[in-house]
Amino acid sequence: MSQTERRQLKLCVVVAPTGAHVGGWRHPDAISDVEASFEDWRRWAQAAERAKLDAVFFADTLSLPDSPPEILKRDLAVSRYEPLTLLSAIAVHTEKLGLVATATTSYNEPYHIARKFASLDHLSKGRAGWNLVTSYFENESRNFGRDGHYGHSQRYERALEFYEVVAKLWDSWEEDAFPVDKAKGLYFDPAKLHPPAHKGKHFGVAGALNVSRPPQGHPVLLQAGSSEEGRELAARTADVVFTAQQTLEGAREFYRDVKGRMAKYGRHPDTLKILPGILTVPGATQAEAQAKFDLLQSLIHPAIGLSRLSTIAGGFDFTRFPLDGPVPRDIPLTNASQSRQKLILETAYREGLTIREFYLRIVGSYGHRVLIGSGSQIADDMQEWAEAGVADGFVIIPTFLPAAIDDLAAHVVPELQRRGLFRRDYEGSTLRENLGLPARPFASAAPQASWG
Amino acid sequence: MSQTERRQLKLCVVVAPTGAHVGGWRHPDAISDVEASFEDWRRWAQAAERAKLDAVFFADTLSLPDSPPEILKRDLAVSRYEPLTLLSAIAVHTEKLGLVATATTSYNEPYHIARKFASLDHLSKGRAGWNLVTSYFENESRNFGRDGHYGHSQRYERALEFYEVVAKLWDSWEEDAFPVDKAKGLYFDPAKLHPPAHKGKHFGVAGALNVSRPPQGHPVLLQAGSSEEGRELAARTADVVFTAQQTLEGAREFYRDVKGRMAKYGRHPDTLKILPGILTVPGATQAEAQAKFDLLQSLIHPAIGLSRLSTIAGGFDFTRFPLDGPVPRDIPLTNASQSRQKLILETAYREGLTIREFYLRIVGSYGHRVLIGSGSQIADDMQEWAEAGVADGFVIIPTFLPAAIDDLAAHVVPELQRRGLFRRDYEGSTLRENLGLPARPFASAAPQASWG
Repeated sequence: MSQTERRQLKLCVVVAPTGAHVGGWRHPDAISDVEASFEDWRRWAQAAERAKLDAVFFADTLSLPDSPPEILKRDLAVSRYEPLTLLSAIAVHTEKLGLVATATTSYNEPYHIARKFASLDHLSKGRAGWNLVTSYFENESRNFGRDGHYGHSQRYERALEFYEVVAKLWDSWEEDAFPVDKAKGLYFDPAKLHPPAHKGKHFGVAGALNVSRPPQGHPVLLQAGSSEEGRELAARTADVVFTAQQTLEGAREFYRDVKGRMAKYGRHPDTLKILPGILTVPGATQAEAQAKFDLLQSLIHPAIGLSRLSTIAGGFDFTRFPLDGPVPRDIPLTNASQSRQKLILETAYREGLTIREFYLRIVGSYGHRVLIGSGSQIADDMQEWAEAGVADGFVIIPTFLPAAIDDLAAHVVPELQRRGLFRRDYEGSTLRENLGLPARPFASAAPQASWG
Repeated sequence: MSQTERRQLKLCVVVAPTGAHVGGWRHPDAISDVEASFEDWRRWAQAAERAKLDAVFFADTLSLPDSPPEILKRDLAVSRYEPLTLLSAIAVHTEKLGLVATATTSYNEPYHIARKFASLDHLSKGRAGWNLVTSYFENESRNFGRDGHYGHSQRYERALEFYEVVAKLWDSWEEDAFPVDKAKGLYFDPAKLHPPAHKGKHFGVAGALNVSRPPQGHPVLLQAGSSEEGRELAARTADVVFTAQQTLEGAREFYRDVKGRMAKYGRHPDTLKILPGILTVPGATQAEAQAKFDLLQSLIHPAIGLSRLSTIAGGFDFTRFPLDGPVPRDIPLTNASQSRQKLILETAYREGLTIREFYLRIVGSYGHRVLIGSGSQIADDMQEWAEAGVADGFVIIPTFLPAAIDDLAAHVVPELQRRGLFRRDYEGSTLRENLGLPARPFASAAPQASWG
């Protein structure tokens, strides 16, 4: 395949929280969420833009994580900006970079979410993206007057209706609804106003959004669900899917499955981009990269390592055993996910891992693949996945900021550009254009196939 | 009283919507919400900051106004930014200016509101203000799954509990809760984490805010309620009250009443600033100012004038009568507000107003006083109110943007400065400091007097 024919990768980078490696914030160069000034954020976003990345991605939750304070105290994921606040500030200091934030459908109202992303889309002139999720921390439910989450199916049913209402709200006004005719005294044309008049199982939204149509029509819609319901919702509605895939085979199954579900909604597979997450540790050489990773691993506090291990091993208490002794043999399997537990434990036994080696193997990347190596080695891996047709690009999970963006820009991006796998300049000015997505029609013009 | 002893006025300016005079958007120089680019907003905010104003103020609603499309189409109040989005962008292009936004307690959740204003306070380094309101458009209720508003008392009961939860959330973390001790692997000190554990009638919020303590402790709290419940809530909780007062006597009654209610909550009257609203039309001379106002009045479309008149006159249909003929005599009084209707109609009959003259007298300023004149004349009026002890400053309601801010800066501010009634430079860097408010203690340390 010649370089010019190569399909280019789409690359987003997670920037909030300020690091995903659990030891990352302890690195001497790390600037964590409570330490970062806006000047830091501006510098990081501008670095991502200079590297021509598609978007920065703000993960989010509406609570502290579900851990006791004695464990939490070692984790940076406890204080961060409300994403839209910070993205709005970044929007006016960048020009092409996409701006993506997570917002849950479980503890929000469609009117607020439609409005916030429409506003960010206006402010950024068409660079907003919404990562639609359902909530998963139990703590989140308890911050919104509930004692536990909605059930899984109920969450997805609510998510679909939520999306539909938001889409209708974005379609409240036609593009040219506002003549602002001073002579006639006509601010808008009532024939171009289309209130949702929505009355559904979970939401009732009668009136129009009080924000004119967003520049992208609909801000870009991201999703990360991998369950049956999550895949179906993505095939039906998403522009981008962010997924954790450990193996090429697993990625292939996921890619084919999700794209295969799109036809029944009248959608072409190319109109959905699937981006597996990768935690990248690039260096000038493989050895340098490995040394960086080893340092990070050494910064994982044993209390966090053991706590995460215990979560995976059904609550088993590893603290009663020596950290550098063997993984104990008498760990009982719980009902929750026996097959996964067994697989993980068998690896530990087969390789004769110590408890410390065991947690180092497992924690740190939140289930995403870890790529350690030179820019060329990491590009090889990304190219392999792209050419195997199992990824349209990647979501880069940073170890910590700012090093992760700087390393990516220094080592990986130039190598991908040399191979013709990544842009040298932005194709357009909106996120939708840069991702190669079709301009979004009105929801009312979209296929109305039922789902359930 | 010598100049140095004079108590200085606090001045905020409403900037969203982009004009309050109902004909303002039709002025040749007006840039309305759907036309304004961020460059415009930045210029306006920086002009307000050069004039040393305390804050820009974004009014807000969660729906279109309650009018039929045929009337609404002549009104700019239909599309605007979600306030926090735009204020976040303005925050990083200003340094001292306060940033105030309305957010309703009727159709929001405390966790979201606490988080947004805490984030804006961090981003602006202590310049955020929250105008706490209860919703009043029926359209708002219908965008949030309801067929009508909560009752008045229920709205205020909910508002008080909402505020209490938000205050607890802002108090989740002590100032120094985050040592970020990389060597020890200690991100925060659990002893300095105080989750609200709130379980009340309207809200249940167990966990801590996932944003560290805001720079101001508590962002500045504004209110605008004038009812019995509104006054009591303000006396108990507000830092600033924004009020519509037509007469000095009315303003005196309001000022004394609200400040008189504070002692039982253990608060000193100086810790609450009362700012009546004034629509200002300043010019180089009185004649120039009057000509500006006359032009604006001529831009009020009769359809809007008649519609507003009809609302005041109990739904009476004025369109059946000649616009430049007398106000008809057979207008029936409705039960809703007979005394006010009678007062207004008697004025029209006594002065022999035409229908056009009648609506021009009434619409345009949303119930606020209109001050038309030279900088010196407007300053005289402001000084009179200040020295009468009925106002701690004013909220300036602009006719339209950008002229209203430019005129204020050119004519009124220099005159107030000459008289020693307004700052020549900001006293501090936070909104709380510039307003002369005490640094905010933790809610848990505040008096716990009951209210009901």
